[in-house]
Amino acid sequence: MRATVMYGAGDVRIETVPDARLIEPTDALVVVIRAAICGSDLWPYKTMDHSETGRRMGHEAIGVVEAVGADVRTVKVGDVVVMPFAYSDGTCVFCHEGLQTSCIHGGFFGTVEVAGAQAEAVRVPQADGTLVVMPAGTDDALMPSLLTLSDVMATGHHAAVVAKVGPGKTAAVVGDGAVGLCGVIAARRLGAEQIILLGRHPDRIILGREFGATDIVSERGDEAVERVHELTDGFGVHSVLECVGLEESERTALSIARPGGAVGRVGVPQDETMPASRPAFYNNVTVGGGPAPARAYIEELLPDVLEGRIEPGRVFDRVARLDEVPDGYRAMNEREAIKVLIGF
Amino acid sequence: MRATVMYGAGDVRIETVPDARLIEPTDALVVVIRAAICGSDLWPYKTMDHSETGRRMGHEAIGVVEAVGADVRTVKVGDVVVMPFAYSDGTCVFCHEGLQTSCIHGGFFGTVEVAGAQAEAVRVPQADGTLVVMPAGTDDALMPSLLTLSDVMATGHHAAVVAKVGPGKTAAVVGDGAVGLCGVIAARRLGAEQIILLGRHPDRIILGREFGATDIVSERGDEAVERVHELTDGFGVHSVLECVGLEESERTALSIARPGGAVGRVGVPQDETMPASRPAFYNNVTVGGGPAPARAYIEELLPDVLEGRIEPGRVFDRVARLDEVPDGYRAMNEREAIKVLIGF
Repeated sequence: MRATVMYGAGDVRIETVPDARLIEPTDALVVVIRAAICGSDLWPYKTMDHSETGRRMGHEAIGVVEAVGADVRTVKVGDVVVMPFAYSDGTCVFCHEGLQTSCIHGGFFGTVEVAGAQAEAVRVPQADGTLVVMPAGTDDALMPSLLTLSDVMATGHHAAVVAKVGPGKTAAVVGDGAVGLCGVIAARRLGAEQIILLGRHPDRIILGREFGATDIVSERGDEAVERVHELTDGFGVHSVLECVGLEESERTALSIARPGGAVGRVGVPQDETMPASRPAFYNNVTVGGGPAPARAYIEELLPDVLEGRIEPGRVFDRVARLDEVPDGYRAMNEREAIKVLIGF
Repeated sequence: MRATVMYGAGDVRIETVPDARLIEPTDALVVVIRAAICGSDLWPYKTMDHSETGRRMGHEAIGVVEAVGADVRTVKVGDVVVMPFAYSDGTCVFCHEGLQTSCIHGGFFGTVEVAGAQAEAVRVPQADGTLVVMPAGTDDALMPSLLTLSDVMATGHHAAVVAKVGPGKTAAVVGDGAVGLCGVIAARRLGAEQIILLGRHPDRIILGREFGATDIVSERGDEAVERVHELTDGFGVHSVLECVGLEESERTALSIARPGGAVGRVGVPQDETMPASRPAFYNNVTVGGGPAPARAYIEELLPDVLEGRIEPGRVFDRVARLDEVPDGYRAMNEREAIKVLIGF
């Protein structure tokens, strides 16, 4: 089969690899019908050292189940399924607590252990715990929005939940990438009254406003902090969604939270330490977040997608066939595209 | 009057200073009957640069109201009052949210603006919002425990609240100082099932066990982390109370929280950045805390102190008269005393 392999920074190739197949009795074999390139794929695209064997990329997909292992009970051949970016057994203590990304028998797609989903097919471990079956006859037009439940919409929602967004509160979203834009949707969906989007890309800002952003701050650093304070009676916001992960964005996020506020961070941190820890302490600002338990959130968000109340699929502004994926990486890296959907 | 003045590291003097007096119409003048030396006073005691004018120390006190300004409505001359370490008006948006340490018209005792309480008398700004009046005829034997409501017991409670301690949960307390020991009391009071105290001073450990610690970890660094994991089926604890504020203790705190757990930090951070931010992210560990809104907690904790259900006053293991305060600083700094009560 054909699959996406990254060999180092800027070096993404589509190659013929051994067909995906069942290995464990709890596996499902899924033929991919939609996949995507993620903002987090750009970190290795910028920095990965050369690898002889390469890395099989991709962790977002919708597909059709082609085969299941002997121990798979609920997922059936022919089901159309959404695959969260992490697999999980659904039965361990952390799965029961709704934190499937810490599943004791879980892990992540696109790693050494489990190949990625930017491919014609993917092996899904712990199929019963991992996959969410879509209702029969789901409209094809909904596929882009359903695909965002694999990662970006669930991740934006996680940021909003951890940042304690609620009715009547003020929120700020740091970062206007696909996750930040989904964060705007999530903040609005949870009732935020004022939603300040910090970003500077005109196309993304337009979409952010349509998703519910009430204010845009395009400054950076201290100027951005000052501007957010101006927009919030000098206090800062109750809830900050950190959707970047860089030192500067984290510092901004912690500096625009009002006293007693909360920061939900979902941008993968690129540094070992967190900046502005002391000011956050004096303001009693809480910082949480991490990999989103997409598996838990899909069931919560699915009705809103199926009934058209939210349209996170609009973050996809480019469609590529599998052999166009290397150019998709380039386009996202050069900010030509917000997010690339891979069709088959 | 006589008061405590710090002129630099290791240089604490008792001096005659101008009598405390009312300045604003919202002030109360309080004659101090009990005060204390705080672990946080030891930071300047270790590091303060020489000051010509000196710093008037102290932020924990019980006293008797001697005079009130024209706008004071609820506090009356003759009232016995507990003074939280921060003053607050009780009416601003943050006071209404229970975060009096961020009061718009508030501040801290023992600063350039407002003199400290290790003195014969203290001016208390925003008296109505700040002071909590004790019931008439309060038993003198309760004074040490009531005095801890000024800071250390409220601070230990804050750590436990932010760390989301609850019935049946596992908790760890990093630091066996007075705040850490009060954190043990708070964790037990909120229902923690297992309470691991990280500390290595035999006298404090004995007290910690009496307060409710179920396990003691005296190792440090990676060994401490390993030991806590051994004690918790390999997972770490739900709730971590960080009661030190050093780089190593913060790293330990973040490393012993289980996935999805919470760290409540109340040790004043001595560094600008927070360590181990990335591992905390991958585990979805939340970090919060800061200066405790003691004013909010006093009313919650007071019945338990008055009725003897908790005895945080046992952290005082030495009593000093005002002129013995410099030696009290030395004794606490050299770990000869856990916490010094100042009697008048």
